[in-house]
Amino acid sequence: MDIGIIGGSGYTGGELLRLLAGHPEANVVAVTSRSKKGQKVSDTHTHLRKIYDIEFEDLSPEDVASRSDVVFTAVPHGTAMQIVPVLLHAGIKVIDLSADYRLAPQVFEKVYKLKHTDPRAAVYGIPELHPEVSTQSFIANPGCYPTGASLAAAPLADAGIIDLVVFDSKSGISGAGAEPTGTSHYPNMAENIQAYKLTSHRHRAEIVQELTRLDGKLTKISFTPHVIPSVRGILTTAHIFVKKELSEEEVGRIYRSFYQDKPFIRLIKSVPILTSVRGSNFCDIGFEIEKDSNRIVIISAIDNLVKGASGQAIQNMNLMFSLSETMGLWIPAIAP
Amino acid sequence: MDIGIIGGSGYTGGELLRLLAGHPEANVVAVTSRSKKGQKVSDTHTHLRKIYDIEFEDLSPEDVASRSDVVFTAVPHGTAMQIVPVLLHAGIKVIDLSADYRLAPQVFEKVYKLKHTDPRAAVYGIPELHPEVSTQSFIANPGCYPTGASLAAAPLADAGIIDLVVFDSKSGISGAGAEPTGTSHYPNMAENIQAYKLTSHRHRAEIVQELTRLDGKLTKISFTPHVIPSVRGILTTAHIFVKKELSEEEVGRIYRSFYQDKPFIRLIKSVPILTSVRGSNFCDIGFEIEKDSNRIVIISAIDNLVKGASGQAIQNMNLMFSLSETMGLWIPAIAP
Amino acid sequence: MDIGIIGGSGYTGGELLRLLAGHPEANVVAVTSRSKKGQKVSDTHTHLRKIYDIEFEDLSPEDVASRSDVVFTAVPHGTAMQIVPVLLHAGIKVIDLSADYRLAPQVFEKVYKLKHTDPRAAVYGIPELHPEVSTQSFIANPGCYPTGASLAAAPLADAGIIDLVVFDSKSGISGAGAEPTGTSHYPNMAENIQAYKLTSHRHRAEIVQELTRLDGKLTKISFTPHVIPSVRGILTTAHIFVKKELSEEEVGRIYRSFYQDKPFIRLIKSVPILTSVRGSNFCDIGFEIEKDSNRIVIISAIDNLVKGASGQAIQNMNLMFSLSETMGLWIPAIAP
Amino acid sequence: MDIGIIGGSGYTGGELLRLLAGHPEANVVAVTSRSKKGQKVSDTHTHLRKIYDIEFEDLSPEDVASRSDVVFTAVPHGTAMQIVPVLLHAGIKVIDLSADYRLAPQVFEKVYKLKHTDPRAAVYGIPELHPEVSTQSFIANPGCYPTGASLAAAPLADAGIIDLVVFDSKSGISGAGAEPTGTSHYPNMAENIQAYKLTSHRHRAEIVQELTRLDGKLTKISFTPHVIPSVRGILTTAHIFVKKELSEEEVGRIYRSFYQDKPFIRLIKSVPILTSVRGSNFCDIGFEIEKDSNRIVIISAIDNLVKGASGQAIQNMNLMFSLSETMGLWIPAIAP
Repeated sequence: MDIGIIGGSGYTGGELLRLLAGHPEANVVAVTSRSKKGQKVSDTHTHLRKIYDIEFEDLSPEDVASRSDVVFTAVPHGTAMQIVPVLLHAGIKVIDLSADYRLAPQVFEKVYKLKHTDPRAAVYGIPELHPEVSTQSFIANPGCYPTGASLAAAPLADAGIIDLVVFDSKSGISGAGAEPTGTSHYPNMAENIQAYKLTSHRHRAEIVQELTRLDGKLTKISFTPHVIPSVRGILTTAHIFVKKELSEEEVGRIYRSFYQDKPFIRLIKSVPILTSVRGSNFCDIGFEIEKDSNRIVIISAIDNLVKGASGQAIQNMNLMFSLSETMGLWIPAIAP
Repeated sequence: MDIGIIGGSGYTGGELLRLLAGHPEANVVAVTSRSKKGQKVSDTHTHLRKIYDIEFEDLSPEDVASRSDVVFTAVPHGTAMQIVPVLLHAGIKVIDLSADYRLAPQVFEKVYKLKHTDPRAAVYGIPELHPEVSTQSFIANPGCYPTGASLAAAPLADAGIIDLVVFDSKSGISGAGAEPTGTSHYPNMAENIQAYKLTSHRHRAEIVQELTRLDGKLTKISFTPHVIPSVRGILTTAHIFVKKELSEEEVGRIYRSFYQDKPFIRLIKSVPILTSVRGSNFCDIGFEIEKDSNRIVIISAIDNLVKGASGQAIQNMNLMFSLSETMGLWIPAIAP
Repeated sequence: MDIGIIGGSGYTGGELLRLLAGHPEANVVAVTSRSKKGQKVSDTHTHLRKIYDIEFEDLSPEDVASRSDVVFTAVPHGTAMQIVPVLLHAGIKVIDLSADYRLAPQVFEKVYKLKHTDPRAAVYGIPELHPEVSTQSFIANPGCYPTGASLAAAPLADAGIIDLVVFDSKSGISGAGAEPTGTSHYPNMAENIQAYKLTSHRHRAEIVQELTRLDGKLTKISFTPHVIPSVRGILTTAHIFVKKELSEEEVGRIYRSFYQDKPFIRLIKSVPILTSVRGSNFCDIGFEIEKDSNRIVIISAIDNLVKGASGQAIQNMNLMFSLSETMGLWIPAIAP
Repeated sequence: MDIGIIGGSGYTGGELLRLLAGHPEANVVAVTSRSKKGQKVSDTHTHLRKIYDIEFEDLSPEDVASRSDVVFTAVPHGTAMQIVPVLLHAGIKVIDLSADYRLAPQVFEKVYKLKHTDPRAAVYGIPELHPEVSTQSFIANPGCYPTGASLAAAPLADAGIIDLVVFDSKSGISGAGAEPTGTSHYPNMAENIQAYKLTSHRHRAEIVQELTRLDGKLTKISFTPHVIPSVRGILTTAHIFVKKELSEEEVGRIYRSFYQDKPFIRLIKSVPILTSVRGSNFCDIGFEIEKDSNRIVIISAIDNLVKGASGQAIQNMNLMFSLSETMGLWIPAIAP
């Protein structure tokens, strides 16, 4: 399978390369970067020295498409919508890691305050929630926060019993990208935690879309993100108030039933932690029910760059090509 | 003012010593530790070398009382209740940093599953919420989480408009103490975040006590703590659903009015961060109102060892002795 | 290939399991732990949930040997010498990760102040320095510091031109093991660096052994270790004073020649960093020559748990079984 | 004492402000910043909210001088040489935190590859090594690395017995300043250590200057810096080879004698660590002698922003104004 990556110099590009290196069917044929054209890929992604001996190229979408069976677009939102139609027109499969196709176009335009130049339906690629991924040639790969949040709450949303949910999410700083900023400046981030966009993060729209798809009556969905002194990972604390009290056994049954045969979901008895999923495509989920209360706390842990981005993109690719869902992704997390 | 510290080998003991070193009226005359008897205080608290040239002693409460005008008890819960009555009987002032006197005795017994051997009323020492501190000779110094949470929500509770509040708190690991544990093991904590006691942390009872004191009708109070890869600090994200929508200006007015003339409260326009309060007795508070919603997100930041423990204890001492509330505590945070 | 691991509950045991999970010829048949007998391996190594569904067993060495083609012993020094002879007597291959067989017995006894009950010659398993690994049925797997230090200096030692070398090594804290200690206590390690055993670390003997094997006249070898606030990795700064000044080109030629065809050595133009090797079996080496001086600074970077322990052990296993040296180990580092 | 700070928006400016806030004789009358003119000082240094209620001004050196008894210049090298002569001409005292006056002009020009426009003698302000500070009206405040390195080795240099010394220094990232860079990008720095300028850091010239002043025959002085995942602090590992073997007692005597009555030097039996000096002006020094060897390892620990910059500057100020050397600086380190 010949693979192109458009926009390969960032973290999600690097992570695609890292994971594809161990994928038995993958053959990376093109990695583009305008600014790093002609430089070795492993000069940027120095952890890939000796693994990849290729250079970044500055190629048109058409050129990438002509070499590839599938292309991953890892470009900023607003840019993807200019590239994706060209790629799809060439008849290849496309997985877009940007935000451009995750939301209904009119929602996208409102949330991103940007005119959509290629309004087009796309399946939202959380395979555990969208079995139709396997029949698609185009997938909108989800945001990192929405992946962790939606997977945490989906079984209860599907059961129609959520009254109100507050997602309080804590992300590693790699989610902010490879470019140095004030937020990512070590003295600002170390020994700190930064809450931001307390009520208005764009990812909320994706969470709302996914949960209301499962429960059309659910409206009370809140989301507040934080960055913590960690490079990778998203821990989502979902404070869920349900319409009727449930026993621990009932909640367990709902989750086991909803996620049966989903290889990357691990339902655990203890509280999920980031270090158990780091570098892997797993999503760990645990919960506790407040005594004499209608509150359930669900915790999910993912690696934001893997299940929250590039790993999930490859999982989607596997399904789109009728490969085993876990091919190249059945890798353990790295700990300690 | 001659000061005794009972239980001086832990973090709160060390922090009392650090802060009292710069207090113009303070004279530390006794620091006890059973296990470290005869050792130099600065062999344990190596950052205090040349600042203190005294040794830990293994003294009875009576002996400490006989030397002191005021005693801080920094011992585990269950132990304080055996020491405090002896100290008070000796006629000195006492500030207890344990949990023993923070709650009504019957609540304490239920929460800590422990018989209280010295049921006694005590003022709960958050001076911003308890002006009566200044007339007391005994203060129950509050828990770290409840200090951050109560200060974040008190003005809205006082206004009687909270319908439901979820406190999602993130603490530095120093709150767990100086003894190495699996949780504090560096490879377990670095690059991680650990949610724990998702629905049943004992500190919730203090928060409930303080907020319901301000609003007797408030019942929906949830609390979930986390430890983050930081040594100091507690960031509290208070997700508050109010009974009626408020404008930014209204909320600002409520907070400014409630906290006017409170020297250690800093109401800020941006989002509070731990590094702005580290090492200091300040509590930074900021907020954002969700658009078209009854949700307000309040963020508070404190240093758990200062405003959350030893600094607040000294603030209480200042008030109990009619000193300036800020004496010895008007020290800037340390950043970066 | 059926594989047994004796002492599987620590970090090197977990890392063997992580790496063997992706090894096409490996089949783990037994993992022992006395204290965790009957518990699921993935309850301890929670990152391996769904990857391994086996339990720790409390087996005799004979029993492990009877199931295995090769056994890794990941036990404390002093214990291995009681197990290894039993395993070897059973006719299987053995790779010992302890210190028991790395040094000549008389040197071992002096350095470890312990009588050796099984004095026996063993090849020291840095394959880049010991091509004879491939003919062995028993390998003493090297210490983490000596791996980084020896690989950094070996080419110049082999050239016979080192006058004096100071190894100043900086290790991640995982090298100290999975048990919580004062050193590994997060508040003690974060924002800190701890030099220790400034002149007397036991690993120095291994470095001396390896370098003097290459240059019998070399005597001035110093080593000082530090732990830094990092979980994984060892950066070795080798301050080397040579007998005659060398040009950058000459040094480069010496290293390229010495390490040609060594797959896991990456000679790089820039300064090696830990994050380029994390999780991988690579050793990155770079250098700079002081102008108008006989001093050369060589930097090497390894992952202490991989090339410094379990990865190198598997590399040895591959060679002992005439498999490709890189089988199961050609995995990229994980970054960011 | 009226104090001006030219260049107050960086870390050393912020640290001057933090420390001067507790100095009984200090009155900050002007803080300049061209880029932040008109902004509140505490909007940049958010940890100083409520401590300082002043704004950055864009003032000429003459204007600052006219308000001040003493001025600290915290500007880049090359800029200070344009400001200092103006300030001195105004007859006030000046402490320059830049590199412009630390070296003899001809050495400066060679090391910094920059023409010196104001060649002028200045006392190098490590007060422990330069008692003449107290008679000066102009001080060149030392670099952070040279402070830690010179203090570690000075007693042995003064004793004339050093044959060769290798300084292997490990610094917190705050030494690189408040501007985000690739090096300070959290994902690049966390879980890492970065050696840099392996043989050619500019600070080496200061170390050479100070040590050869004490021992004119000492020539073998090497220096390699590293940044570690810590915000503050410099740990210097001085690998010293002496001309004749010394006993532990002899070395102890040399250090105690050399540093007697130096309030900020703490000679300790254990290995110095950063967390014992963080936020304070202390320099902790410890050592170990290699058995049967002429090698001594000296470790020093300082806070790079305090003893390595702003604290030392205030120490110099105290001496220049015949105040107690420790005034405003006798503050304990902050730990944990």
